[in-house]
Amino acid sequence: MYKMSILLFPHVGLFLAILISCVESKYMVYNTSQTIVPGKLNVHLVPHTHDDVGWLKTVDQYYVGSNNSIQGACVQNVLDSIVPALLADKNRKFIYVEQAFFQRWWRDQSDEVQKVVKQLVSSGQLEFINGGMCMHDEAVPHYIDMIDQTTLGHLFIKEEFGVTPRIGWQIDPFGHSAVQAYLLGAEVGFDSLFFGRIDYQDRAKRKTEKSLEFVWRGSRSLGSSAQIFAGAFPEHYEPPSGFYFEVNDDSPIVQDDINLCDYNVQDRVNDFVAAAILQANITRTNHVMWTMGTDFKYQYAHTWFRQMDKLIHYVNIDGRVNALYSTPSIYTDAKYATYGSWPLKTDDFFPYADRANAYWTGYFTSRPALKRYVRMMSGYHLAARQLEFFGGRSNAGPNTDSIADALAIAQHHDAVTGTEKQHVADDYAKRLSIGYMEAEELVAASLACLADSTSNNRCRSRTTKFQQCPLLNISYCPASEVNLSQGKNLIVVVYNSLGWKREDVVHIPVINENIIVHDSEGREIESQLLPVANAYLGLRDYYVQAYLGRTPNKTPNYRLAFKVSVPPLGFNTYTISSAKMTDVSSTKSYVQTFRRSENSTVEVGQENLKLTVSTDEGKLTNYINNRSLVEEIIEQSFSFYAGYDGRNDTNPQNAGAYIFRPNGTYLIKPEGQVPLTVVRGPVVNEVHQQINRWIYQITRLHKGKEHVEVEFIVGPIPVDDGIGKEVATQITTKMETNKTFYTDSSGRDFIKRVRDYRTDWNLEVNQPVAGNYYPINLGIYIQDNRKEFSVLVDRSVGGSSLVDGQIELMLHRRLLLDDSRGVAEALNETVCVLDECRGLTIQGKYYFRIDPLGEGAKWRRSFGQEIYSPLLLAFAEEDDDSWMDSHTPTFSGISSSYSLPENVAVLTLQELADGKVLLRLAHLYEIGEDKDLSVMTSVELTKLFPGKKIDKVTEMSLSANQERREMEKKRLVWQVEGMSGEESKVVRGGPVDPTKLVVELAPMEIRTFVIDLDGISGQYVSDA
Amino acid sequence: MYKMSILLFPHVGLFLAILISCVESKYMVYNTSQTIVPGKLNVHLVPHTHDDVGWLKTVDQYYVGSNNSIQGACVQNVLDSIVPALLADKNRKFIYVEQAFFQRWWRDQSDEVQKVVKQLVSSGQLEFINGGMCMHDEAVPHYIDMIDQTTLGHLFIKEEFGVTPRIGWQIDPFGHSAVQAYLLGAEVGFDSLFFGRIDYQDRAKRKTEKSLEFVWRGSRSLGSSAQIFAGAFPEHYEPPSGFYFEVNDDSPIVQDDINLCDYNVQDRVNDFVAAAILQANITRTNHVMWTMGTDFKYQYAHTWFRQMDKLIHYVNIDGRVNALYSTPSIYTDAKYATYGSWPLKTDDFFPYADRANAYWTGYFTSRPALKRYVRMMSGYHLAARQLEFFGGRSNAGPNTDSIADALAIAQHHDAVTGTEKQHVADDYAKRLSIGYMEAEELVAASLACLADSTSNNRCRSRTTKFQQCPLLNISYCPASEVNLSQGKNLIVVVYNSLGWKREDVVHIPVINENIIVHDSEGREIESQLLPVANAYLGLRDYYVQAYLGRTPNKTPNYRLAFKVSVPPLGFNTYTISSAKMTDVSSTKSYVQTFRRSENSTVEVGQENLKLTVSTDEGKLTNYINNRSLVEEIIEQSFSFYAGYDGRNDTNPQNAGAYIFRPNGTYLIKPEGQVPLTVVRGPVVNEVHQQINRWIYQITRLHKGKEHVEVEFIVGPIPVDDGIGKEVATQITTKMETNKTFYTDSSGRDFIKRVRDYRTDWNLEVNQPVAGNYYPINLGIYIQDNRKEFSVLVDRSVGGSSLVDGQIELMLHRRLLLDDSRGVAEALNETVCVLDECRGLTIQGKYYFRIDPLGEGAKWRRSFGQEIYSPLLLAFAEEDDDSWMDSHTPTFSGISSSYSLPENVAVLTLQELADGKVLLRLAHLYEIGEDKDLSVMTSVELTKLFPGKKIDKVTEMSLSANQERREMEKKRLVWQVEGMSGEESKVVRGGPVDPTKLVVELAPMEIRTFVIDLDGISGQYVSDA
Repeated sequence: MYKMSILLFPHVGLFLAILISCVESKYMVYNTSQTIVPGKLNVHLVPHTHDDVGWLKTVDQYYVGSNNSIQGACVQNVLDSIVPALLADKNRKFIYVEQAFFQRWWRDQSDEVQKVVKQLVSSGQLEFINGGMCMHDEAVPHYIDMIDQTTLGHLFIKEEFGVTPRIGWQIDPFGHSAVQAYLLGAEVGFDSLFFGRIDYQDRAKRKTEKSLEFVWRGSRSLGSSAQIFAGAFPEHYEPPSGFYFEVNDDSPIVQDDINLCDYNVQDRVNDFVAAAILQANITRTNHVMWTMGTDFKYQYAHTWFRQMDKLIHYVNIDGRVNALYSTPSIYTDAKYATYGSWPLKTDDFFPYADRANAYWTGYFTSRPALKRYVRMMSGYHLAARQLEFFGGRSNAGPNTDSIADALAIAQHHDAVTGTEKQHVADDYAKRLSIGYMEAEELVAASLACLADSTSNNRCRSRTTKFQQCPLLNISYCPASEVNLSQGKNLIVVVYNSLGWKREDVVHIPVINENIIVHDSEGREIESQLLPVANAYLGLRDYYVQAYLGRTPNKTPNYRLAFKVSVPPLGFNTYTISSAKMTDVSSTKSYVQTFRRSENSTVEVGQENLKLTVSTDEGKLTNYINNRSLVEEIIEQSFSFYAGYDGRNDTNPQNAGAYIFRPNGTYLIKPEGQVPLTVVRGPVVNEVHQQINRWIYQITRLHKGKEHVEVEFIVGPIPVDDGIGKEVATQITTKMETNKTFYTDSSGRDFIKRVRDYRTDWNLEVNQPVAGNYYPINLGIYIQDNRKEFSVLVDRSVGGSSLVDGQIELMLHRRLLLDDSRGVAEALNETVCVLDECRGLTIQGKYYFRIDPLGEGAKWRRSFGQEIYSPLLLAFAEEDDDSWMDSHTPTFSGISSSYSLPENVAVLTLQELADGKVLLRLAHLYEIGEDKDLSVMTSVELTKLFPGKKIDKVTEMSLSANQERREMEKKRLVWQVEGMSGEESKVVRGGPVDPTKLVVELAPMEIRTFVIDLDGISGQYVSDA
Repeated sequence: MYKMSILLFPHVGLFLAILISCVESKYMVYNTSQTIVPGKLNVHLVPHTHDDVGWLKTVDQYYVGSNNSIQGACVQNVLDSIVPALLADKNRKFIYVEQAFFQRWWRDQSDEVQKVVKQLVSSGQLEFINGGMCMHDEAVPHYIDMIDQTTLGHLFIKEEFGVTPRIGWQIDPFGHSAVQAYLLGAEVGFDSLFFGRIDYQDRAKRKTEKSLEFVWRGSRSLGSSAQIFAGAFPEHYEPPSGFYFEVNDDSPIVQDDINLCDYNVQDRVNDFVAAAILQANITRTNHVMWTMGTDFKYQYAHTWFRQMDKLIHYVNIDGRVNALYSTPSIYTDAKYATYGSWPLKTDDFFPYADRANAYWTGYFTSRPALKRYVRMMSGYHLAARQLEFFGGRSNAGPNTDSIADALAIAQHHDAVTGTEKQHVADDYAKRLSIGYMEAEELVAASLACLADSTSNNRCRSRTTKFQQCPLLNISYCPASEVNLSQGKNLIVVVYNSLGWKREDVVHIPVINENIIVHDSEGREIESQLLPVANAYLGLRDYYVQAYLGRTPNKTPNYRLAFKVSVPPLGFNTYTISSAKMTDVSSTKSYVQTFRRSENSTVEVGQENLKLTVSTDEGKLTNYINNRSLVEEIIEQSFSFYAGYDGRNDTNPQNAGAYIFRPNGTYLIKPEGQVPLTVVRGPVVNEVHQQINRWIYQITRLHKGKEHVEVEFIVGPIPVDDGIGKEVATQITTKMETNKTFYTDSSGRDFIKRVRDYRTDWNLEVNQPVAGNYYPINLGIYIQDNRKEFSVLVDRSVGGSSLVDGQIELMLHRRLLLDDSRGVAEALNETVCVLDECRGLTIQGKYYFRIDPLGEGAKWRRSFGQEIYSPLLLAFAEEDDDSWMDSHTPTFSGISSSYSLPENVAVLTLQELADGKVLLRLAHLYEIGEDKDLSVMTSVELTKLFPGKKIDKVTEMSLSANQERREMEKKRLVWQVEGMSGEESKVVRGGPVDPTKLVVELAPMEIRTFVIDLDGISGQYVSDA
């Protein structure tokens, strides 16, 4: 126990001293100048506010302080009031985190205020911590979105203030990912990372072992080269009980005026010392941090500082402990200065339970439509920025700033998580939609600029108005639903944002049936017309009306599928036209319908992969790959969990937006009468199943592909029985997987999971389902001694392997009760047309494949990139056949001879506002993941910028706000307990030779460069 | 209707104009410089906070912002935040009212802040309004306390800032008194008086007649010479609905950033204009005032000003109405500048009901013990200040500053009113007690200084330690309860603070029975020993233990009554000693006990006044005065009202601390077995009655006095039947009083009341009891064509005449429910010893007398002064008989030949901190009240300061913060509708001739002087 004896030390003189000081000076000056005192327990008071970038109110409502009937919160007040509070005493400090708010505020300030704030930042009184646009969630955002939103905030801070945040501050997110630690922590250049929420069992153990603070190595591949000092708070990110000082808070204020009643200085000093010692007893070193603030506090900053001034003054007169104004940076440096060593932490902090039966694993799936929308926009954003670069960025717009901003905000831990109120979810979607519309305009213009010319005078004329189809997922695409029988042709420009040449199949709804598809060289392309399933037609009409306010005026007769081939970072053009008498038009699919009563099996698939489906139960039964010789008995099913109603429990805990707490699992049996339909053709084979009234499923095999694509339509989930339901699907094999499965961390590294087990403590299992759920962003896989079975997803979902050989994904949730974590709404999403509302229906896909053991990574990594970056389609019409002659039909942004290595992806190719280029290259493989590809690889920069001269290449930190070299130099090197420091050095890519311009990438490495190109800027703008 | 058409005027340009201004300037500057625009509707935004000087929290808790779990309120925040908010824009304005808070704050400020605030005051941005220590109640405080607390605040403001408040601002008190209007309004020099609470029926009528603003002549005697412009707010003292801008308030803020969502400028402008027109439609002239604030608001002043800045900016761009920052002064001047004439208002605004069945007449009696304590302290304060002057004031103390401060705070409209929480009532009592203890010390020292010397070397030696007995009302007086049988003598110094010589009877508890009383010249004084009633002994022991924490160690055997005669503003000394064998010792009383079964009558009284009491019912039956020949059949009874329990009503309204809502009247019948006791003797005759278990009454006639004194002990009121009760007493005559009775206004003017009738509107009677209750401070009387029957009280109580010939007083209230006016506690007072609590018992007195018609005023006025200023007793012991030789046994502060005229009282004789003397003289009679005394009278100042040279006499305003001449010069002269302005001029006392130094006083006139005396200062201090 930490120096308990100091409590007993008599301080009789204190009261007298205070009395005298009070009586003598009518105006009291508090001594707040204390800094760290060695040998004493130092209590670091860290004044902070936690400002959710949307939750119960929208981000703008939080900023301006409207809608206060929902929640009293106004960030403008916080920032307005903090400035004079800091100016009033140069010892006071404050940290600010969420740049989405700070940027709004900054825009509103006068030059005088901006000048003063710059001084406060430069003196360290005001410190930017974390510094992204929001405090992103760590379970459901994709790591590219995490990087982008952090970069957006960091570059703003760099540009306006010339500083780089040093500390990660993920105090509220509901569990913590490995990617956060190593990528958004160490690789960003942070020296430490603090957070509030870890499993209650974990926390209890760490308290007894004083291991709430540790060194975290989040990446197996990058190991100690990307480690960070991390600290979990003892309780939460709030002050100790009794030290809340917001306007109207009811903690006892320090009453030190002896002329008034209720003088309480000694009481408050004693309270302070007691709380400090309590914390010291579970903390290593003689430094403890008090997070002095919480959600949306410091609306009148003065109220906090007045009390903290007094506490520091009187506690230090008392002398038992040392109290000081501090920041997480100062605290981190103080920890570092102790030269101690720290426990080691690997992997991550999922799942998170704040108490028994309260696993925060429901939110991995909550609001699946919003999650998919965010993921779609994320991929679109990546592509749009490439096209913005190719076309030339316009700061005046249209550009990608708006979608970048909307996406950044959507990564907030109450945004894409689905844990916000409905009106706030609507606001995120609206912002994405607004951002998308501008990006769509930019993309159309850029494609026009690239396509509307045949020579080098690119972008001089942009006459084509390309259309795009964001509602293609529900088979709505006015651009393709044109009547081609009158001689019109439909031009489809297909853009590929990946660094590799890509073969894929495009599906679009069409009207006509006698049509033919040609490539840009006039070759006829194999294509197939599929029936539009009835399940889609109702969905399409309802949702188009709900989203666009109008009923579609046409109904597509077919879905046209055709194979495309697109160069890296480039496009190809296809023409769809009415077939002439002489042509072999698009193949109509062959449709077979099986009644459930027929007891037989049917095989689908062509080439290597074949599936067998039993016609009576409508189930998969067999999976065979003739090339890899993998064969597996396989079944797929749906079930639902009943949402727990804990209202009558002693410790009530309902299932809700955050919490997954099932009250029984119910298998969904296929309803008897509905037939199974098999659709066949040269491009794609499909099995259509109406599972029940509200689940429709298409199992799809594309020619030339060796994975199964499963498309599902789920909803509206019926709740007329008063029971909320969470719908999951299971794919079951006979594999013996020994409780073990692997899930990705934020879409990047895979982490081993063992059912009912935690690496860091002996798990007490009280929720055998919810407590084994993990977030899935990229995929999940299991393996036995011969095979590995992988499932990849199109958005973040919750998933698990609850039974050996089985993978389960939670697809949709509709619940009727709130789960008491503040949102105060049931997660009961509905979609309304006029006054009629229905439960939300979702549409989506997952993909699975079985590989020989050791061969699965290649598909997971490569196809994972294709899922994240789907082909971007742009449509135009032509009246004659002149398109290919008058336009550039194919384009690649990189050297035509070049393709990126199979193990490398371009995460970012972006023209910055100053005309420089931001390039991020990522090695896609972990060490040992693939025998061929988990190796050092390299990219030739010159090939990425054909026709451009590279003036300068500067390697930057991940968020591009400092040179990598500087970052490495400043980085604190933490010692791990029990390790000699002589562990094998992690090999990473070496410096870029300015003459060779080759970038080396070690497994899992992401490298960020700012590149000065000669004459890149203005290509697009000059034309405006 | 006010220009309704302007709503229809199209302002299509506005939105565009705003858009442009927003887009162009990132930092928005709002134009707030607008002043009054003639011809437009001017909306005066008056930013204000209403800070109760104690209510749910104590005054200190409100100031520092502690105890926020009860109510979020911190006045320190308000004042801290207002300074930068005003500095940020010189057009912003703020008014501050309650000096009890402002003074606390001022003491805490640095020199820099004080300097800045002085500039803000001097520029008019910060204006002191009302300016007393608190916003006193108007029903239950005595006018002397109102003057004192106002003076205390006004002198502070004058001294620190050199300004004089111009406006009365009684926005929250629960009804409004005539004295407030003419004395604390006009005579203080205010140009207007604003308030929020008038009867809902009255308000409705005034709205339709646009007579919410009027000229108020509160005094019949002073008429137009003391009139004031007054305004009742249309609703309350809050902003219009939807314009509340405190931190976390949920009114829509003005969102004028087009880059964010929810832009709403036009909506808010429309709301503003609509609210302005609504108010204009019930208001004369084109000026309306918006009270922008409410209880304890502006904790972060910035939040209000930010929104008001925007409203002023955009509303004035819109142009339909004119919005401006204003103050009540600016508003008053604007009203005055219209040169209009206004309706006339006389009398007052009592009682107040805020809706049907909600008469705020319960609080006239609530907490009767606190009310009595305040009144006792008030009289003691007056006397102590005289003695402080005679002894010489010490600024270092002991002095009367502390009791003055405590008394000032106690006048607050949730203090002496009894409408505060219990812990707050305890705090007021504690402050009074602390103030009293210092004053007691001062009084003892001053008396010692005056008595301990025989020549002119006054105050050179002060050896005597005089003791006083604040608990004499429950027969507890350790100083007098000494054993005199050992040869000790008890010295009693009796001080008279009235300006007349006074004959009175003193009652003190004593131990011995063979005792004798001598006057200062050695003459034996007639005295009488009375038994100490059993009812007292229990009360005494319990309350001494409750208040002092110890049981009295003696029990007095007798109450000694003896007659005393004391010079004006002076003292006389009496010696009580053990009677020697030769002496005729004090007469023991003759005690007769009558069983209730005896059916007879008994007569008590000696000399002129005689009462007959029936022994069977224990009731009074007859009243005879042989001198005045008045005779009347008279009965006295007790009853209780059951407190209404409205919890199951549609519109719930319980009886509570504020609200009197009886649910039936129940006569309290004397309980059968308890005997009636008659006590007779040479000094006093008494009839003792135990009315029931919890009511004891003594009816007392003093020799030489022609009034009846009734002493009552009431409580604990039983509530074990679950019903709250309010105890009243009725004194019933046969007089035919035609529904008419007279009650005093704040202890000064009498106002005619007519049952079930209001002068200003046709009363809809829904509460025939509560709606006829009025506050009684001095007394109440009724008259028929031959007699007048007056009752005077020892504290404020509620009273009425509900039946012709009858006067009723509410004596005590104990209720079990809260009445929903915010206090959130039942008025259920208890007193505890250790863990045992009992309902509060109160002890008190009232006095009555019947006079021939036209002769009652003299007793009411003269004896009223005696009740307010009881004789002050100080005790000492002597061992030998040397006292009279070694001390000054008699003293008068004024010339020995002089006495003040019978119709004049000295309200204030006080040495100010600067050594000058503050003197207030009051004419005690209204015009026509007494045929001899309601005339111009005069006081010779030289006689008031014997042995002193008067250097200078300056007549001041009532609150002594400006010269009366200046005040008269500045005063706005308002026109009354339908009056020519040629009404007969009110005659008042003329200027004081500096050579003659005679002060004339017209009926009801109070004149205030600051007097410079030669060498007055230091008499006491020089000795220290």
